[in-house]
Amino acid sequence: MVKLNSEMKNAFSKMRIFPLATASKDGVPNVIPIGFCKLQEDDETVWIADNFFLKTLENLKENPRVALYVWGPETQGCFQIKGPIEIKTSGEDYEKMYKMVKSMGDRFPARSLVIMKITEVYECVSGPDAGKKLL
Amino acid sequence: MVKLNSEMKNAFSKMRIFPLATASKDGVPNVIPIGFCKLQEDDETVWIADNFFLKTLENLKENPRVALYVWGPETQGCFQIKGPIEIKTSGEDYEKMYKMVKSMGDRFPARSLVIMKITEVYECVSGPDAGKKLL
Repeated sequence: MVKLNSEMKNAFSKMRIFPLATASKDGVPNVIPIGFCKLQEDDETVWIADNFFLKTLENLKENPRVALYVWGPETQGCFQIKGPIEIKTSGEDYEKMYKMVKSMGDRFPARSLVIMKITEVYECVSGPDAGKKLL
Repeated sequence: MVKLNSEMKNAFSKMRIFPLATASKDGVPNVIPIGFCKLQEDDETVWIADNFFLKTLENLKENPRVALYVWGPETQGCFQIKGPIEIKTSGEDYEKMYKMVKSMGDRFPARSLVIMKITEVYECVSGPDAGKKLL
């Protein structure tokens, strides 16, 4: 696993919507915008709330890994993170996420918690260095 | 193949940056922001310029399909499109893309043209209908 540096953490904290990519077992990519995506205090774990995942959840069950990028009007630079995930539908972490999501709006079902471990970080700024491994 | 409807076309035309997802043959997802992504006049073909693709190009060569979504501050609603692609590095279409990209900035190498055929469109607005097939 790798820890985001302070610049990356800062950019992460400013993001409101993240593009979350998954793939089916046989490699069909899928990408959706997600709103609840929180870097944890260890700087290498990301919590993602599943409120209305359909294909994303199917993909995660058969191929438990994700990619997402951090970039937007709020941030400087752009980087992509990748890593494996685990799905929780009960337990302390799930309950904590459930409360956080419910405090944001009762309309969100907070069905499951997707816990991502960051294992790779890539440069994503357009230019000759795009795609280079940063961490 | 499927044609985008007029509402979708309108949203597409307003987008400046698209999240483009691919996957390796063995299903590792990848997602990057892209700037040159143009719906063609047939409403079912998308041209994507490869300027600095690295992993994306590797993925497309071994697993020629993409997913992207149309959503942003500029648009209403949100939808995801999926489909197979072809890569062109010569010919009339490639030359046309090359000129368009170069007119946007000489720093862009316009290395290849990725031609996507839209085969599926999915609802991507957060809510109980998220993930539903629209077209």
